[in-house]
Amino acid sequence: MRDKESLRWISERYFEQNGTHYQTLLTPPTPLQFSRLVHISRPVLIKGVKIAEDLTKLWTNDYLIDRMGERPISVAVTPNGRADAVTPYDGTHYFVEPLVEQMATSELLSSLSTAVSERSDIYYLQSQNGNVYRARSASLEEGPVSEFDSLKRDIPEEITWCSEALGLPPDAVNLWVGDSRSVTSVHSDPYENIYCVIRGKKIFTLFPPSEGWLLEEREYPHATYTRSSPSSDLKILPSGKTVRWSSIPEPDIYPPSGTHPIHIEVGAGDAIYLPAGWWHHVRQSGPTVIALNWWYDMEMSGMTWVMLSFLRGMHLEGDDNAEDDNL
Amino acid sequence: MRDKESLRWISERYFEQNGTHYQTLLTPPTPLQFSRLVHISRPVLIKGVKIAEDLTKLWTNDYLIDRMGERPISVAVTPNGRADAVTPYDGTHYFVEPLVEQMATSELLSSLSTAVSERSDIYYLQSQNGNVYRARSASLEEGPVSEFDSLKRDIPEEITWCSEALGLPPDAVNLWVGDSRSVTSVHSDPYENIYCVIRGKKIFTLFPPSEGWLLEEREYPHATYTRSSPSSDLKILPSGKTVRWSSIPEPDIYPPSGTHPIHIEVGAGDAIYLPAGWWHHVRQSGPTVIALNWWYDMEMSGMTWVMLSFLRGMHLEGDDNAEDDNL
Repeated sequence: MRDKESLRWISERYFEQNGTHYQTLLTPPTPLQFSRLVHISRPVLIKGVKIAEDLTKLWTNDYLIDRMGERPISVAVTPNGRADAVTPYDGTHYFVEPLVEQMATSELLSSLSTAVSERSDIYYLQSQNGNVYRARSASLEEGPVSEFDSLKRDIPEEITWCSEALGLPPDAVNLWVGDSRSVTSVHSDPYENIYCVIRGKKIFTLFPPSEGWLLEEREYPHATYTRSSPSSDLKILPSGKTVRWSSIPEPDIYPPSGTHPIHIEVGAGDAIYLPAGWWHHVRQSGPTVIALNWWYDMEMSGMTWVMLSFLRGMHLEGDDNAEDDNL
Repeated sequence: MRDKESLRWISERYFEQNGTHYQTLLTPPTPLQFSRLVHISRPVLIKGVKIAEDLTKLWTNDYLIDRMGERPISVAVTPNGRADAVTPYDGTHYFVEPLVEQMATSELLSSLSTAVSERSDIYYLQSQNGNVYRARSASLEEGPVSEFDSLKRDIPEEITWCSEALGLPPDAVNLWVGDSRSVTSVHSDPYENIYCVIRGKKIFTLFPPSEGWLLEEREYPHATYTRSSPSSDLKILPSGKTVRWSSIPEPDIYPPSGTHPIHIEVGAGDAIYLPAGWWHHVRQSGPTVIALNWWYDMEMSGMTWVMLSFLRGMHLEGDDNAEDDNL
């Protein structure tokens, strides 16, 4: 328990030093300004991002369906809108991944904010694997791997002020399409993230890396939603693997004692800079919510990676899975 | 002792991640490149710094004496070249500051690398208080406070690529004049530091902030060298104050177990970027060693300051002064 005192000391000092303030920029930063923001590593709401503003107008449902045609895309399917979340099942808790089904863009869009047949399954395009662009060695791949080839003309490969600031191209560019029934459970990524909302609104609840230990990551058994036939209900199928994930289901509503959540609403045409290692829980609002994000590798030289690992309690590995772990 | 395990874990992971490598630039960085280097926060040897190269040629002893004239300057005087160092006295150890005496530049320069009268006192111009320029509110003061007004025409108020990268002017600019008998004991500063050597050579022994706890800072009683008359010997005079300082006298020669010192020689015309919080022990080589440094306030938003405090063991305050503190 003494080691938790270090984490408590750091999280309290970090809050004293920084509060819950976040900066709002009315226009995108220059590369040099953004480089300074990356060094500070706090979230920034960025308005006036031209690509987001342009696509807000361009990307109507008709336009997207017209451009995508019948090409199948990979969509996450869950019974409750909680893909990649800790879910009770069979007397225990599992980290459950969604079922991924192929469908036409028109089917995804028509499902949003309406019940999908009698099953009420919830669809969310959230593949997060660089579904638009993905880095291959040094340059971004533009091969046939993307399901969204026909949208690439609209989507820049990089955010220039970010690429110039960091001195590298993005590692992955993702398209997200869902509705207010889908929620992203709290987690952190080892990426610098530029997240642009194109339609609807995203509500981020953010915790600094220093408060990650209060989000109580534990190892959960891993499972996936599946179904035996296209018409049957979703079932949870354990895989035998485990996943380390936060134990806090709704930190936006019930933040753990000692945390200081920052709530940031990102509207259509706006972007947020989400620094590497920041914990984020994401709700969305609107009948159809569309977003794009650019993930950049974080700087691995220096102290940042070591600190993020420490703040996640990696130095406690081996004794942090105990259920009686009173913080 | 459990809390030291956190510090050990971080220092070991930091070394695994970064080794003892340091970058050498053959020309100064652009502001954007330097901003990235500040984020990485590791030392960088920088060659081709024009101001250092120019002054290497311009600043002969004759030139300096001619420009400075008889104007008195404040020089640190010690019996052993160890200003601001832990020194045994009267059965205990004191942190001892130098006596500061006023003299003409010609007297300082003629003393270097020669015995000063029968006393063999050692002179080192190292006032470190912004002896050339000092920030007052937002802009650098150019009033009559500096003893080096007549050298200011030669000394730029700022290093432009550093000021632009950080978005602020320097907090202090210092001139250093000494010889190989003077040594700076290991310590760290909360400043981003651009340190240029004009004549001679400086040998830096550097430790990352993560290894600061192995340098064993303790509270020492404070004292100052003094003398009763201009012709009498230097004596140590305790002040009743205390100073927190490293217990390791020669970490360049005897690095503590678990540390990974980085040795960097900075020759005339070269500069070193010494990131905030890095521990540095400095020797010098040459009959006359002249240097200039520009101190910039470090970024106080974000995690850096909290981490530097943690790595100095500030969370252990109250139980780290015990003499039986076995690491």
